[in-house]
Amino acid sequence: MVDFNSMFSANALNMKGSVIRELLKLTARPEIISFAGGLPAPETFPVADLKAAADMVFDKHAAKALQYGTTEGDADLKAEIIAFEGRQGVDLNKENLLIVSASQQALDIVCKVFLDPGNYVIAGRPTYVGALQSIQSYRGKVLGIPFTPEQDGFDMDALELGYAKTIHAGDKVKYIYVIPDFQNPAGFCWSLAKRKALLEFSYRHDLVIIEDSPYREIRFIGEPIPSIFQLDQKGEHRGTVVNLKTFSKILIPGARIGWVMGPEALISKFVIAKQAMDLCTNVFTQKWLAEYMKTGKLYAQIKSTCDNYREKRNHMVNMLEKYMPKRWEIKWTKPEGGLFLWLTLPKFMDTDKLVLKAIEQEKVAFVVGSAFYFDNPEHNAMRINFSYSDKPTIEEGVKRLARVITAELEAYEAGNRAKTTPEGL
Amino acid sequence: MVDFNSMFSANALNMKGSVIRELLKLTARPEIISFAGGLPAPETFPVADLKAAADMVFDKHAAKALQYGTTEGDADLKAEIIAFEGRQGVDLNKENLLIVSASQQALDIVCKVFLDPGNYVIAGRPTYVGALQSIQSYRGKVLGIPFTPEQDGFDMDALELGYAKTIHAGDKVKYIYVIPDFQNPAGFCWSLAKRKALLEFSYRHDLVIIEDSPYREIRFIGEPIPSIFQLDQKGEHRGTVVNLKTFSKILIPGARIGWVMGPEALISKFVIAKQAMDLCTNVFTQKWLAEYMKTGKLYAQIKSTCDNYREKRNHMVNMLEKYMPKRWEIKWTKPEGGLFLWLTLPKFMDTDKLVLKAIEQEKVAFVVGSAFYFDNPEHNAMRINFSYSDKPTIEEGVKRLARVITAELEAYEAGNRAKTTPEGL
Repeated sequence: MVDFNSMFSANALNMKGSVIRELLKLTARPEIISFAGGLPAPETFPVADLKAAADMVFDKHAAKALQYGTTEGDADLKAEIIAFEGRQGVDLNKENLLIVSASQQALDIVCKVFLDPGNYVIAGRPTYVGALQSIQSYRGKVLGIPFTPEQDGFDMDALELGYAKTIHAGDKVKYIYVIPDFQNPAGFCWSLAKRKALLEFSYRHDLVIIEDSPYREIRFIGEPIPSIFQLDQKGEHRGTVVNLKTFSKILIPGARIGWVMGPEALISKFVIAKQAMDLCTNVFTQKWLAEYMKTGKLYAQIKSTCDNYREKRNHMVNMLEKYMPKRWEIKWTKPEGGLFLWLTLPKFMDTDKLVLKAIEQEKVAFVVGSAFYFDNPEHNAMRINFSYSDKPTIEEGVKRLARVITAELEAYEAGNRAKTTPEGL
Repeated sequence: MVDFNSMFSANALNMKGSVIRELLKLTARPEIISFAGGLPAPETFPVADLKAAADMVFDKHAAKALQYGTTEGDADLKAEIIAFEGRQGVDLNKENLLIVSASQQALDIVCKVFLDPGNYVIAGRPTYVGALQSIQSYRGKVLGIPFTPEQDGFDMDALELGYAKTIHAGDKVKYIYVIPDFQNPAGFCWSLAKRKALLEFSYRHDLVIIEDSPYREIRFIGEPIPSIFQLDQKGEHRGTVVNLKTFSKILIPGARIGWVMGPEALISKFVIAKQAMDLCTNVFTQKWLAEYMKTGKLYAQIKSTCDNYREKRNHMVNMLEKYMPKRWEIKWTKPEGGLFLWLTLPKFMDTDKLVLKAIEQEKVAFVVGSAFYFDNPEHNAMRINFSYSDKPTIEEGVKRLARVITAELEAYEAGNRAKTTPEGL
């Protein structure tokens, strides 16, 4: 038996499997109600339109679509994306655009291009677990910045202090990673003021901002706030913001197609990195999504997805209000977009333990809050997805969740009572 | 203007763009006859069958095919691949199999999991440029092993000596990378004896072998020789061989789907690495290829592709014999499979310079031989693709190639004459 561990790279030894991907496997068990995954609602998938677009590719572009393509991405798809972003006020040339095999690949590319072992990334506490995994896989570190109690963005004092300390310790900070629109996992949206403040901070310290915006178009309440990428374009335009987008939430995740917008100097470096990673992104799928976008139906598609999610989000918030125990302080975000809300239990609760009971006893799953921290995790929160389940399942799942939480809190109280006023002894 | 270069990782600063990808851009210019790319023949793509299979996915599996999938790969596709490999005598469980976004991603995963900066990979001189790019992007090094004059595999004495020297210098060798079936770029096939000798060498030094087999099924002359992966299975079965396969050459490259076969302990590490790279491979495409494979048509498809390539290969060999100048020693391989042949010019010739004249003056392109060396490249060879062009184009391309080579050789001779017997002075 060969000892492979002795052969692995230091990076490989530092890699962590994803808690979420492991939890997702549970969603395959039909008896489990899963609020764990970040799965879009399958009923939103425009199957007939997508089929028509795919047929069009076979009929019109087969020889090109089934062949190798360029690393930069398909020209037709790029043209459609430039138009799509243009409608949102984003000004883009094809040199500023790279098609990727969905956003996770973009995160991997960014880490590979910027991070030497020990380098820091500034990111939220909590933040997207897939971004943390990528950073870990290059032995990067995270300077975690807490959000304000108003949940409008970073605590800027904590950012200034944390940054100064890190630099003073002789460490290098390479970039800032944020998800200003319906932050994963917490679901809230950064204010315009906080976006501007972060941009100004990044200018001051010559830092690149990686703005991850998978949910930007999935806003079902309120008006859009300019992205940090847009703020840079409309302001000093230093070209130091990179914006990551994907079809995963606005259309379908199974296509694994996303795009990266950024300064040409970075995009061309990303292209070289991507060449060695996969030569090019799935060519057929690029042509397919380009054909679909040419129909102009994506706009109505996004609107109807937003309508669907608004209803589910309202339903989940209502169900939480109806079923969650009132005796203890339990809070949840009420997001204006995205796919998740973030539920916080009293400090003494540990969702890492709770999740096992939830799955085994009540057949309901969520993602433990601790998964979203690079280090020193908070243990009393959970991420709950509202996009995937239908409304009756949301009600049943919240009921189950409320039961397991109530039981745990009552057990805690009983234990405390037992400690403070021992009875029958 | 921000200086991004100062922010890049050491790995990023070491990355090299691909000569081939740059050359491929030229193939878009219609006046150029390109023997450069490794493009399969578009006329082999079974468009109608693929369309029917895609339609089947929309009709039967849309909700799953358009959703996120597992990192390990689609169960249906894995079952089909296990059956496909089984017919070739490869014994496989699903735990030994990982679906990847084509072989280049597998090469990236392998490098990420094994290589610390400065670690060595044993590989051929010449070898696949995409493998070299991946290694460079992790700052790995290559111990280049020449092939025997008979072109049946590594010069084993050179391997023993090179390995001993590397270890003696205190360097670590992490794995062996080979393409035993119709080696890219040279097109020849390893003998059974050399495959066994390499396996025995790897056992003796506890080294993993990464056997890259994109062309294995594209054999149009002669009988298949067991892969090193099979030899391990049928012999000591130490489970130290990893075999990379892809649909790119046996069906279509535009799907960007490949598979990795290996010991469970490595496959599960690869899965963790892949999670942080792209979460999962294109789900729709996996279901699509699974539906296509279920029809059983892949076997006849491969046979007809082999028929097509045999004819083109024979035609190209005939045209080379017809048009290449006879006065100098010009040699080319006569491969029994794959997509390429390797043409060697007299030692004093430099194809790095020749390629520019070929493109500008004669509108014909090839890949310079020097691209296929990690260091100390040979400069007098070129890789020529015969799969993509039709037969008249092959003839015209070879004619042009012969013209530019003849002109260069005559100029060299004239120069030499001028030097040795100066006339008119």
